[in-house]
Amino acid sequence: MLSVDLNADLGESFGAYTIGMDAQVLPHVTSVNVACGYHAGDPMVMERTVRMAKKEGTAVGAHPGYPDLQGFGRRNMAVSPEDARVMVMYQIGALNAFLTAEGMRMQHVKLHGALYNAAARDLDLALAICDGIHAVLPSVIFLGLAGSQMVRAARETGLRFASEVFADRAYMPDGSLVPRSRPGAVIHDTETAIARTLRMVKEGSVESIDGTVVPLQADSICVHGDNPEAIRFVEQIHRALEDGGVQVRALDLA
Amino acid sequence: MLSVDLNADLGESFGAYTIGMDAQVLPHVTSVNVACGYHAGDPMVMERTVRMAKKEGTAVGAHPGYPDLQGFGRRNMAVSPEDARVMVMYQIGALNAFLTAEGMRMQHVKLHGALYNAAARDLDLALAICDGIHAVLPSVIFLGLAGSQMVRAARETGLRFASEVFADRAYMPDGSLVPRSRPGAVIHDTETAIARTLRMVKEGSVESIDGTVVPLQADSICVHGDNPEAIRFVEQIHRALEDGGVQVRALDLA
Amino acid sequence: MLSVDLNADLGESFGAYTIGMDAQVLPHVTSVNVACGYHAGDPMVMERTVRMAKKEGTAVGAHPGYPDLQGFGRRNMAVSPEDARVMVMYQIGALNAFLTAEGMRMQHVKLHGALYNAAARDLDLALAICDGIHAVLPSVIFLGLAGSQMVRAARETGLRFASEVFADRAYMPDGSLVPRSRPGAVIHDTETAIARTLRMVKEGSVESIDGTVVPLQADSICVHGDNPEAIRFVEQIHRALEDGGVQVRALDLA
Amino acid sequence: MLSVDLNADLGESFGAYTIGMDAQVLPHVTSVNVACGYHAGDPMVMERTVRMAKKEGTAVGAHPGYPDLQGFGRRNMAVSPEDARVMVMYQIGALNAFLTAEGMRMQHVKLHGALYNAAARDLDLALAICDGIHAVLPSVIFLGLAGSQMVRAARETGLRFASEVFADRAYMPDGSLVPRSRPGAVIHDTETAIARTLRMVKEGSVESIDGTVVPLQADSICVHGDNPEAIRFVEQIHRALEDGGVQVRALDLA
Repeated sequence: MLSVDLNADLGESFGAYTIGMDAQVLPHVTSVNVACGYHAGDPMVMERTVRMAKKEGTAVGAHPGYPDLQGFGRRNMAVSPEDARVMVMYQIGALNAFLTAEGMRMQHVKLHGALYNAAARDLDLALAICDGIHAVLPSVIFLGLAGSQMVRAARETGLRFASEVFADRAYMPDGSLVPRSRPGAVIHDTETAIARTLRMVKEGSVESIDGTVVPLQADSICVHGDNPEAIRFVEQIHRALEDGGVQVRALDLA
Repeated sequence: MLSVDLNADLGESFGAYTIGMDAQVLPHVTSVNVACGYHAGDPMVMERTVRMAKKEGTAVGAHPGYPDLQGFGRRNMAVSPEDARVMVMYQIGALNAFLTAEGMRMQHVKLHGALYNAAARDLDLALAICDGIHAVLPSVIFLGLAGSQMVRAARETGLRFASEVFADRAYMPDGSLVPRSRPGAVIHDTETAIARTLRMVKEGSVESIDGTVVPLQADSICVHGDNPEAIRFVEQIHRALEDGGVQVRALDLA
Repeated sequence: MLSVDLNADLGESFGAYTIGMDAQVLPHVTSVNVACGYHAGDPMVMERTVRMAKKEGTAVGAHPGYPDLQGFGRRNMAVSPEDARVMVMYQIGALNAFLTAEGMRMQHVKLHGALYNAAARDLDLALAICDGIHAVLPSVIFLGLAGSQMVRAARETGLRFASEVFADRAYMPDGSLVPRSRPGAVIHDTETAIARTLRMVKEGSVESIDGTVVPLQADSICVHGDNPEAIRFVEQIHRALEDGGVQVRALDLA
Repeated sequence: MLSVDLNADLGESFGAYTIGMDAQVLPHVTSVNVACGYHAGDPMVMERTVRMAKKEGTAVGAHPGYPDLQGFGRRNMAVSPEDARVMVMYQIGALNAFLTAEGMRMQHVKLHGALYNAAARDLDLALAICDGIHAVLPSVIFLGLAGSQMVRAARETGLRFASEVFADRAYMPDGSLVPRSRPGAVIHDTETAIARTLRMVKEGSVESIDGTVVPLQADSICVHGDNPEAIRFVEQIHRALEDGGVQVRALDLA
């Protein structure tokens, strides 16, 4: 039976600051990406998030980013591949402590924000990061952008890879995302987004912004949980997938 | 045969900033306490330090501290036991990533600076921290102040414990350290310091500041590596111990 | 005519993180305490907050705290008086840049959280901080706890002082606040809180937790703006003061 | 009489970490660029540095950088012009507090590291930063790379500008610096470096890496103070300038 994972970022609160409706989105996804204290998250938040995921039976992955809390990891930083490698090792090690304490294993690693985008384009960066992950957790899944340099880096490093697609984003004819700065980059109509997502999962393809059909591997769908509307969308897409005969389950079970 | 460990703090550099003569002190000690990025250290420094220790065959421990780089972890902070627990888990997890990548195991955990002093006095804090360590690495050794609340906390948590003594510090009649603010707190004469250390190791006792003899468990001796004089002292004490029939070796081997 | 100031903390958001209903509370207070980037706030937030206050004609003060974003400045830190002095100078200088750019002057400085509490008790700390403020902005008002060591420190340093009282807090017979850990520390009934506040402003006294009447200077009333209920309370107290014949206006105008 | 300024970065230590031989280089330069706590420096270091400069009669400027202590401000960050503007305002405001306390005025602002390089190339960034500086300190001098976009931005904003040249760097035919990654980027021979510098100051031109002569405005010469060799070079170039009939003095006096 066809299956797919639904993943969302969690644990992005910090100290007295709250971001995200973690408790609301958690029941509707099968994997969560937990911030590791560099661009968001702190040890208290990390433990709480891991415990919440455990209670719901949701798979947990690390969500390492650049050391830029003020910019929430969204600003590109000229970090060398070697430095990025050890920064990722540090962050996944830190999260792993909380998983070990709960008797859980880390399912995956998904990079955050500007680091994700940089590694999608830059093979050397992606390779260094995969090397670092492999050295710490050789059997973890690297979750990254379908068709990007991360796929190739994971393969060359011997790391398992899962491809993620975006339900609400338009694609270029080469399979990359239409930059947010361009018109039409974001799909605002819920029904269209759901129909596109079902096609990506069932047919392995998407209609790009110029009308051409692009092949696309969809192991996981990235969704968001920062506002009530986003939560409703996650519920809807989860139900639409199941109604369409697609099993929604974590990567490790897929 | 009688044996003792010699431990020193390492890996306290940060970014462009260098502290400590790590390469110089490393050959003369048997265990190193590696800073974990909170009060000192960064991922690049941590990996480099772990690799240096591996090359020398020196045992590695984590050296977690308060999140206070500006104060180098030396300022007391009113962090709750629960928060201290997860902060320590985070830091030892991060260091463990680099050890795992090198095929090494973490030998011990030794708290840093103000966190060390607070846990020596405050049983609730020490218990919470031991709980956190045990949940992540149940067989690691907790290295702490001889005779302090850390001993009791480790025992109650089921964590292995090793007692450390200070070669160059005076002791109170109750076995605690004479505060640095008081005259006579630091032993400046090298020969006296060495003679006292030998006695602590061989007889399990020290003459306190008021002349009474205090029993003291000496599993490890804390030494420093931040200046040439300190390095010379480490060499001297290492030789004096061996000349006195004491084997100098890591805790795990003791 | 009798007058009093209403002050609230503002600009405590940071990067992607939002705290406080700044736009909602601003119209109802006469002075705002703007975080300066140590325990909360960042340059973008600081400029935005100063501009909002300018538009409303609200007086602006600096709200310096300990360098502890993770703890929101609420954890006590063993910072020496000398270090606290320069930390406060740094923060008020940074905020002053945004005021200068808007053609405004800083009305006051009010310490935040754990630093406020420490300086209320510790004369040496309060003196060092007042020295630092005076050296940078000799005519600014130091806004602090009525009856605390801050009053004495300001007087000895030659700094103008304004006493603040808390509408929703119980007082000890010596005029200090009942610690939050004790029952009865917080006044939950709105009418009681308003009646007590009016008495503090009009009679300069408050009934302490043991029933004795304590004299108390009330130049400013500290209110909060972090939730809708708090905002409603600010509106109510503002109206009750005016209905009671008390003019609500900024410190500099009082 | 022909004159030129010699400027060096100072106050880059942080907490327990020391960088730079500040006391050694200070007597040989006429202007210092003081780090402001973002890429380096802290309030204690800033006050100490300002006081040292006051004692020597050296002019003081602010040296703002990216918020990246781990990378020492040397890593490029995708900070928007608007965000860079307020970050610079924050930092110069903070330093100005210490200057005000000593009865001094800020002579200049010189950007640090990656922010300097970005503003040299990017007019929008340079303009936003100049706007921010002008709003806080309209009569301060903006010290930047000769011939760069910073010159134009300062002119358009109405900010005074001073051009700096590098004694030990090779220049491209268009007047920009040869990137450090290219061979020949750094002039290692002291005599050559001194001869080139004298020519830049006296003739307003430099021989570029391809042999063509490039016009270059030299109001200030950037020198370094991080090691004994660098200090010796500063002494030598200072003497060579005076022997060559060039007065070495601060920008404000030039």
